Amino acid sequence: MKTVCFGEIMLRLSPEGHSRFVQAESFNAIYGGAESNTAVSLANFGADAAFVTKLPDNPIGQAALNSLRRFGVDTAKIVRGGPRLGIYYCETGASQRPSKVVYDRAGSSIALAKRTDFDWDAILDGADWFYFTGITPALGGELPEICMDALTACRKKGIKTGCDINYRSNLWTTEEAGRVMRDLVRLVDVCIANEEHANLVLGIRADEGLTGDAAYESVAKKLSAQFGCRQTVLTIRSSTSADDNTLTAMLYDAVSDAVCFAKKYSIHIVDRIGGGDAFSGGLLYALDAGRPPEDAIEFATAAAVLKHSIEGDCNHVSVSEVDALVQGGGSGRVQR
Amino acid sequence: MKTVCFGEIMLRLSPEGHSRFVQAESFNAIYGGAESNTAVSLANFGADAAFVTKLPDNPIGQAALNSLRRFGVDTAKIVRGGPRLGIYYCETGASQRPSKVVYDRAGSSIALAKRTDFDWDAILDGADWFYFTGITPALGGELPEICMDALTACRKKGIKTGCDINYRSNLWTTEEAGRVMRDLVRLVDVCIANEEHANLVLGIRADEGLTGDAAYESVAKKLSAQFGCRQTVLTIRSSTSADDNTLTAMLYDAVSDAVCFAKKYSIHIVDRIGGGDAFSGGLLYALDAGRPPEDAIEFATAAAVLKHSIEGDCNHVSVSEVDALVQGGGSGRVQR
Amino acid sequence: MKTVCFGEIMLRLSPEGHSRFVQAESFNAIYGGAESNTAVSLANFGADAAFVTKLPDNPIGQAALNSLRRFGVDTAKIVRGGPRLGIYYCETGASQRPSKVVYDRAGSSIALAKRTDFDWDAILDGADWFYFTGITPALGGELPEICMDALTACRKKGIKTGCDINYRSNLWTTEEAGRVMRDLVRLVDVCIANEEHANLVLGIRADEGLTGDAAYESVAKKLSAQFGCRQTVLTIRSSTSADDNTLTAMLYDAVSDAVCFAKKYSIHIVDRIGGGDAFSGGLLYALDAGRPPEDAIEFATAAAVLKHSIEGDCNHVSVSEVDALVQGGGSGRVQR
Amino acid sequence: MKTVCFGEIMLRLSPEGHSRFVQAESFNAIYGGAESNTAVSLANFGADAAFVTKLPDNPIGQAALNSLRRFGVDTAKIVRGGPRLGIYYCETGASQRPSKVVYDRAGSSIALAKRTDFDWDAILDGADWFYFTGITPALGGELPEICMDALTACRKKGIKTGCDINYRSNLWTTEEAGRVMRDLVRLVDVCIANEEHANLVLGIRADEGLTGDAAYESVAKKLSAQFGCRQTVLTIRSSTSADDNTLTAMLYDAVSDAVCFAKKYSIHIVDRIGGGDAFSGGLLYALDAGRPPEDAIEFATAAAVLKHSIEGDCNHVSVSEVDALVQGGGSGRVQR
Amino acid sequence: MKTVCFGEIMLRLSPEGHSRFVQAESFNAIYGGAESNTAVSLANFGADAAFVTKLPDNPIGQAALNSLRRFGVDTAKIVRGGPRLGIYYCETGASQRPSKVVYDRAGSSIALAKRTDFDWDAILDGADWFYFTGITPALGGELPEICMDALTACRKKGIKTGCDINYRSNLWTTEEAGRVMRDLVRLVDVCIANEEHANLVLGIRADEGLTGDAAYESVAKKLSAQFGCRQTVLTIRSSTSADDNTLTAMLYDAVSDAVCFAKKYSIHIVDRIGGGDAFSGGLLYALDAGRPPEDAIEFATAAAVLKHSIEGDCNHVSVSEVDALVQGGGSGRVQR
Amino acid sequence: MKTVCFGEIMLRLSPEGHSRFVQAESFNAIYGGAESNTAVSLANFGADAAFVTKLPDNPIGQAALNSLRRFGVDTAKIVRGGPRLGIYYCETGASQRPSKVVYDRAGSSIALAKRTDFDWDAILDGADWFYFTGITPALGGELPEICMDALTACRKKGIKTGCDINYRSNLWTTEEAGRVMRDLVRLVDVCIANEEHANLVLGIRADEGLTGDAAYESVAKKLSAQFGCRQTVLTIRSSTSADDNTLTAMLYDAVSDAVCFAKKYSIHIVDRIGGGDAFSGGLLYALDAGRPPEDAIEFATAAAVLKHSIEGDCNHVSVSEVDALVQGGGSGRVQR
Repeated sequence: MKTVCFGEIMLRLSPEGHSRFVQAESFNAIYGGAESNTAVSLANFGADAAFVTKLPDNPIGQAALNSLRRFGVDTAKIVRGGPRLGIYYCETGASQRPSKVVYDRAGSSIALAKRTDFDWDAILDGADWFYFTGITPALGGELPEICMDALTACRKKGIKTGCDINYRSNLWTTEEAGRVMRDLVRLVDVCIANEEHANLVLGIRADEGLTGDAAYESVAKKLSAQFGCRQTVLTIRSSTSADDNTLTAMLYDAVSDAVCFAKKYSIHIVDRIGGGDAFSGGLLYALDAGRPPEDAIEFATAAAVLKHSIEGDCNHVSVSEVDALVQGGGSGRVQR
Repeated sequence: MKTVCFGEIMLRLSPEGHSRFVQAESFNAIYGGAESNTAVSLANFGADAAFVTKLPDNPIGQAALNSLRRFGVDTAKIVRGGPRLGIYYCETGASQRPSKVVYDRAGSSIALAKRTDFDWDAILDGADWFYFTGITPALGGELPEICMDALTACRKKGIKTGCDINYRSNLWTTEEAGRVMRDLVRLVDVCIANEEHANLVLGIRADEGLTGDAAYESVAKKLSAQFGCRQTVLTIRSSTSADDNTLTAMLYDAVSDAVCFAKKYSIHIVDRIGGGDAFSGGLLYALDAGRPPEDAIEFATAAAVLKHSIEGDCNHVSVSEVDALVQGGGSGRVQR
Repeated sequence: MKTVCFGEIMLRLSPEGHSRFVQAESFNAIYGGAESNTAVSLANFGADAAFVTKLPDNPIGQAALNSLRRFGVDTAKIVRGGPRLGIYYCETGASQRPSKVVYDRAGSSIALAKRTDFDWDAILDGADWFYFTGITPALGGELPEICMDALTACRKKGIKTGCDINYRSNLWTTEEAGRVMRDLVRLVDVCIANEEHANLVLGIRADEGLTGDAAYESVAKKLSAQFGCRQTVLTIRSSTSADDNTLTAMLYDAVSDAVCFAKKYSIHIVDRIGGGDAFSGGLLYALDAGRPPEDAIEFATAAAVLKHSIEGDCNHVSVSEVDALVQGGGSGRVQR
Repeated sequence: MKTVCFGEIMLRLSPEGHSRFVQAESFNAIYGGAESNTAVSLANFGADAAFVTKLPDNPIGQAALNSLRRFGVDTAKIVRGGPRLGIYYCETGASQRPSKVVYDRAGSSIALAKRTDFDWDAILDGADWFYFTGITPALGGELPEICMDALTACRKKGIKTGCDINYRSNLWTTEEAGRVMRDLVRLVDVCIANEEHANLVLGIRADEGLTGDAAYESVAKKLSAQFGCRQTVLTIRSSTSADDNTLTAMLYDAVSDAVCFAKKYSIHIVDRIGGGDAFSGGLLYALDAGRPPEDAIEFATAAAVLKHSIEGDCNHVSVSEVDALVQGGGSGRVQR
Repeated sequence: MKTVCFGEIMLRLSPEGHSRFVQAESFNAIYGGAESNTAVSLANFGADAAFVTKLPDNPIGQAALNSLRRFGVDTAKIVRGGPRLGIYYCETGASQRPSKVVYDRAGSSIALAKRTDFDWDAILDGADWFYFTGITPALGGELPEICMDALTACRKKGIKTGCDINYRSNLWTTEEAGRVMRDLVRLVDVCIANEEHANLVLGIRADEGLTGDAAYESVAKKLSAQFGCRQTVLTIRSSTSADDNTLTAMLYDAVSDAVCFAKKYSIHIVDRIGGGDAFSGGLLYALDAGRPPEDAIEFATAAAVLKHSIEGDCNHVSVSEVDALVQGGGSGRVQR
Repeated sequence: MKTVCFGEIMLRLSPEGHSRFVQAESFNAIYGGAESNTAVSLANFGADAAFVTKLPDNPIGQAALNSLRRFGVDTAKIVRGGPRLGIYYCETGASQRPSKVVYDRAGSSIALAKRTDFDWDAILDGADWFYFTGITPALGGELPEICMDALTACRKKGIKTGCDINYRSNLWTTEEAGRVMRDLVRLVDVCIANEEHANLVLGIRADEGLTGDAAYESVAKKLSAQFGCRQTVLTIRSSTSADDNTLTAMLYDAVSDAVCFAKKYSIHIVDRIGGGDAFSGGLLYALDAGRPPEDAIEFATAAAVLKHSIEGDCNHVSVSEVDALVQGGGSGRVQR
């Protein structure tokens, strides 16, 4: 299995521990972004994952690239050039205080990239999957077209496509997002969303009167019906505090018309960022490994759960660690 | 609104994370004290806050002063001189192990200050509020008289006064505290206390047989009645472990004879120190902003709750962040 | 009271915070091992504790030795020589992700030690107690014989002996452990175990049909009966996540045929490692101080509970801190 | 004396110690820029210094502002708004490896500022001096006009003006710089430059055949003659390695036609950045304090020398520390 | 150009700054070894470099592997298995105090590797160069034979071979080294040594009476003559303190019978470890790039010089940075 | 050999690296004082060293005590009680900027100690040497009498005494020092001083006209003559910058009337504090080991030189490391 992930990777600057920005005297520096996080997830599972983006040809861009190589992601198709690496500042919340992200990503090398920067035939050569999120076209410029180029090439080559809708209100309006994403999602085989984003971006709501699981089922089925996605997956999170969330997910398989829900987990959070990207990584891995939908959704959910215990954007867990959680681990006893 | 806060600021030396003193190889160095914490809270709300104390004329005293300037507190009236900056060592507890404070504050420049060090007419010029806590007179020496000088000047100038009783058994006995504080509280408009300190220092207990809210109401009314405070405010905390507390508060407005209770919060604690000072900051801010008592007590409580999620003594939150919590936030979802 | 503890001390290398091994750019370096942890516990209680092992004659061995001296453990009988200090890598879990230990202890100076390295007559001179765990003979080589030498010398000299069964599956099989430990435990006065290890190593199971406290009682009585231990103590832990455990314990006194259970605690974990060693330290201290069994088991349990709030292997708490928890503390209110 | 400094302040991100960018896992975060560094220098000398810029209205902008308040710089006239705070990455060289700066300052709030953002009448109210460097107009956009607005206002109000030519080849060409700076320098009273920049930007070269001190004198006199600067000051640095530099300076006073050279220092460098800004701070302070030119140039040089021993952009030294160095200190004996 | 480097990579544990081992509370953790350092050097020059070793199949082995991937080294041929990763502890000296290394490398996965672990035909496929040092066979076990297997395969395939003699007295005696290395060096095209090791290991001394450059020339010519190395290169270092060294080198080309010496540098040392490995990296790069011997020796020497300014084992510099130093850089002026 | 050292140990708070106090966000915390530094030096040489002082009975006092135990110093005779541990803040200078110490030691437990706190008969039992410096009586209160008590007891018991004059102008005037020290030095066998302090405290100056070695000789001989010291030792330091000093020393043996000078070293300084205490440690060790005066002075000087390369107050070097430097080491080549 080889997956090509496409999007933006940024420098993430985080104050130590629970310090607020105005208290910080130093920042932990890691490099992350939705699609690169998923690529690292996949590489950590032992899968062949490539990340495609455009990075400035300076030591900061190189450090971002190196962070991917370190975990085994193929970076050979990354384009170098343009003015800068995007940045996001991230402070970690606690209790009633939410984590806070300040973006400084405008004008990045990837946001200013051109369609001619990417030769999709070459990039997708040998790939089985292509993955992106709604953040990539939201970067603006030629990115919507570039995404369309990629998806079109995938269809031609018979490469499966996955997309996490991932609406970001600070990048575009729901109208803009809807206009662009509707066209893209039509070329997506596996669509990942949550109830809110399905509504905001694609205008899909559960049938009136439905609540709970039935509502989720309704959303997923409509989404697959409207956009032709073979599988629609919803992540279902509830947040009781910055420290404590619950997480589960459901998968609708349009081919078999089957619905399956994952176990629901209560999570004590170390780092909330990248939970969704870890979910995507788990899902793509499990689907490609030929695991049946009911197993794939469990694997994806458990992978996402484990991510919350790990500092940084990326999910540094192995297949066996995820499987252990699915099979009833989670008691957290020391492993010697 | 301009508030003058008067008291001691100390160097706080804290081992990293949950290390005990005997494990520490370094100390995080911040500067805090009850009244300076409140001043920083107010400045972070955008209010005009000055802090008055006496600091040694050496780089350590300068660092303490700078820590206040950094967050916008007016330090122009700080007196320089005397031998040393007080210190408190503070290790962070967890689970069943309490946080532990070791004071090394005797002989500090402020503890040895003289009445002639402070020209209250000049210091209070333009002020709307004066704030101190029971810790300031507890420092001994001429501090009780200096506090009386300040309060007397406030009455003359029509400046409102606030005081948190804040009894510290390692600084004075309840007898000494009672003798001094009774005289001072008579010149206080807004008195903040908890049930225990109201009893220990001012000898005020709920009417027999009363429990719960009725008991708190009884204490507050008696306190206002005996000492003439326009408003008496009680903070109500329960501690289930070093990590987990609940917090609420009540306000009794003697003018309108109204009682209002705040929402009760369950807090997962990052740093317990300064929670009460954040409460005072929130209360003074809200009262001065003309918010009605029932809103002021909610604002103060929410401000104090957020403090517990922040490292250090001071509450680095904005008015809008506090308002968001009052208005139903607290789910801790990442803010992008 | 003087206790001689015998076993291995290792360099523990832990990534910062919750970082996984593959994320680590530095390791916190402390020195710990089951028996040395117990020795430090005892020394922190003000008891006279010596640790005996073999350490390489290089600066790393010296640093391990110094770590013990720092907390008052007598290191005069430590043998110097051999090739290396054993190492264990330890990453801290969270939520559903367990803490993980990677051992690199083979070929250490103590594992290669010879019977002739230890002159037990001299080492045990003046001792009241001898303590080891099942890990020491599990190191292999001549260690089983060396342990037998020590226990035999204790019997001759009338020195009381304590042992924590502490089965480690990565060091030996249950068959090997059973063969060696059965002989050793027969010379042990106070035997500490949990239900699982009593079964795996000594083949002792509760009478069929018994559950809960009755089952624990059954195990302890059988163990004392079969091996002649004056006291058999079981620690009873349940793990709901890497962050949250419950802990209690029971003590069976074969002399008086009395059984006593400790209070059960819910713990929020800072560092799980060394909890059992802290328990042993508390138990030996309390027994030697002549506390009655029902008090000793409470003291040992509370000591172990407090250890979970402390970073590193060792329990840095005082007798008064443990007593305070036993007597109803644990609310975690700041101690000023 | 009150000095208004105008320019850009950036977030400076530096790897720990001598780590290169590609090795960094965290960055020390300080805030610096040529003119704000000079403002901090002046404030540390006890002078009244204000800094004017435009900062984004987010916590990162606030942190930059706070860093100035901390050291006593007046930030009341800083305009808030615009998209982002500029960044510069800075790694510290050693021996034959030079320090390296990567700029990411395009599109910052100040670079996009408008003439209408700054009401110079109000900003300059009460000022004695106005200071900027050639970097400020080099930011492009309306900055050249804004600088001209400020200088024109100064002339009207009789405020003295100082400028460090400070050519930055990555911001503009020498042609662009020459065109803009020639007009601005005509409104400058005290012009600071080095031989290379005087040539590149203003086209001023020593008379042919002159070398050494005579050449510097020639450059300074010509510069004053052509642009009407009352005083022209040249800093004279030689770099033998990233660790070791020599530094001296000369001042030409056009009014008295006097030339004076400072003592030449050999410096072991802790942090090279901000040396020139410290020089400007020292010069403005000494001139305004009415020190004669030969003393002012010594003071400025010694201030710059001390900066090289201090981490970060800013010169945290007092007047008495600079005076001590001028008067023969520099032996570095411990001060107790 | 593709170079296969073969040897051991270890975990390097270093106390912070200049702390001694007995002061350390944490260790910086990097991964280094002679041949892997050279591989990283080459990859940083943009060359294709692979590293071959055997690493334990645990997270610590994975972290070592990741450290190589991060900098672009091909790790696909690394064998996984065996018990442990070797370790070396390294404290940084200063002034008269030397840096100190404590090895804990016995019993590592590579030291226990078998000839059958390495399929040299597959490993060397596509390689232009093979590089190892005298440390690899010094690890003992089957390593001498494995090195011979590799060199024999290289001769068959026409792959050029390079070797740094690198005698380590704590791994083997000069007799053992001589016996093994003499056979291996006969299959080496480019032999790197210093005067001392050439004598100790290969028994080659300058003709009597010769000193200085003539002595070096004599040694190099004899070495090439005796062992048939096309090129013999000597590094020439003098150490005046732990902080200050001088470095130069000479190259003898046996084909053209030409001798060339590099410029001599005075270095202020940040990290001494890996200087020789950086030299090898520079030499192989330059030779393969077809640079003439007199340029290659300058490139290698400048690369080694720059390494001393960089923390850790590896040389993180680019070709252009080395060329800049050769062409007269080294003044250390800040690069903006 | 057993040496009892008597004086004050303080908490030393140092900003990281070269940060100034006003930049510090944390302090490295070590514990040091002149006499305890010497005790640690001796213990690191394998000698039996005890430290006597009075420490507060709180965790901070315990941490100070533990820091001594860690390095093998006997702390059994330390008196516990009194209000506080003295503190000194210490920032590290560089180049022309001197290191700076701010004392906060008034009112410490030892400064307020009483003669009755110390039972010298018991404390000195088994001792061969007693060591103190001029700082101990300078603490005031009863310390001069306590020092006299100790010295008188030494004379009675035949214990040799050593004293470093160590004048501290911030603790007492030269008049006070002279009055107290003259009486004490008369009971000192080995007196250590430098030329300046010998003059300031004891009024001893070289005969007029003498310079260089002859002047030092004159001072030492006079000192021995006037005060009856068997040996007078002068340390001779010159400071060219905060980074670079030279150091040598001379010893005058009054018994044999012999004078010997040590080699002169150029030192690149890591941490200047404690250099003199390391000298005393080396001197006492060498004298007690029976080394002849010319060897003892070399050993002491080399020990002091090595101290400058070590962070913190204490000299963590072994006898063999010092001997190696004396015997011609100092080239700083890596020791493997």
